[in-house]
Amino acid sequence: MRKTNEVEQLIYLFSKLPGLGQRSSRRIVLHLLQEKEVRLKNLMDGLALAASKIQICEICRNIDSHNICHICTTSDRNKSIIAIVETVAELWAIERSGNFNGKYHVLGGALSASMKKSPDSLRLPQLLERCMNHGVTELIIATNATLEGQTTAYFITEYFRNYNLKISRLANGIPIGGELDYLDEGTLSLAIALRQPFD
Amino acid sequence: MRKTNEVEQLIYLFSKLPGLGQRSSRRIVLHLLQEKEVRLKNLMDGLALAASKIQICEICRNIDSHNICHICTTSDRNKSIIAIVETVAELWAIERSGNFNGKYHVLGGALSASMKKSPDSLRLPQLLERCMNHGVTELIIATNATLEGQTTAYFITEYFRNYNLKISRLANGIPIGGELDYLDEGTLSLAIALRQPFD
Repeated sequence: MRKTNEVEQLIYLFSKLPGLGQRSSRRIVLHLLQEKEVRLKNLMDGLALAASKIQICEICRNIDSHNICHICTTSDRNKSIIAIVETVAELWAIERSGNFNGKYHVLGGALSASMKKSPDSLRLPQLLERCMNHGVTELIIATNATLEGQTTAYFITEYFRNYNLKISRLANGIPIGGELDYLDEGTLSLAIALRQPFD
Repeated sequence: MRKTNEVEQLIYLFSKLPGLGQRSSRRIVLHLLQEKEVRLKNLMDGLALAASKIQICEICRNIDSHNICHICTTSDRNKSIIAIVETVAELWAIERSGNFNGKYHVLGGALSASMKKSPDSLRLPQLLERCMNHGVTELIIATNATLEGQTTAYFITEYFRNYNLKISRLANGIPIGGELDYLDEGTLSLAIALRQPFD
């Protein structure tokens, strides 16, 4: 069938977004075109505003409307502790947990041979400079519990080994609400090995 | 946590699109912001082009870059047969099937008390005018096999009862690849009642 080029192109663009395929993109495009003046216009305005305002923080690579992000700027947070995350998605996830009041370093992804992500791109020298000159005492390595994330974690640990820094990483174990029967063996075996005493 | 207003707003806009929620919208927005100059810009351009070009066909309410759509314009298609569909999504679905060479009438949705879709919005007088003055002999009612779709189908059938038109609707039965054990009882019972002789 022949859809118009503009519609085809828009469906194609949406289908390249993470989590979307042909069918979901078609639905979205039709939804947008159905009330073009409102829906399509609102989305265009939102995108234009983000395009013009959003910048990447010079210090931690968070995204923000200022070139130093609000987390790096504020004095309300503990600047002696830095959580190292793969991307802004993980930064947001930790912020949602509400249990961290330090600062961040966003790596921009995990090390991976296939994706051609090199150690240079992690900006570890800049992080080291922050640690040395701005009173940082602890690094929490909060990379994902994937092969790439763990590889990256070891690499970072090695990098900072000879400096006077406390280096920790997120606990592994059974997620809250997790049922043992449905859990993978690796996690369960780790949870047994790392069992904690009742207080 | 406090994301910037622009990012929050963009996530909100995406989360209102069909099939997307908070989490998938966050992923999409981060993906777009990651390579702002390319990804975000391409999507904005695509939306802007669609916004400026796409129109709703005056005759059938298909969407197209002309105010009479390519299906209504072409002489390659059989203009004596019209398929009545709920929305452009169903028009596209029928076009993908490759087994229909007539024209269309897009209702703009099915009748529904709760969604406040009224019979007036179906534009049946305009369709009747098309039938009377442009040599239409058959209407295929291709509404969805849902309660609303079937109600709409009966309503349309009643509307056109006293005119000299052949009115048909899509066959019900077992979908290709369907396994009887997994099929709902309604479809199976219908498939038995409507069983067809081997040729």
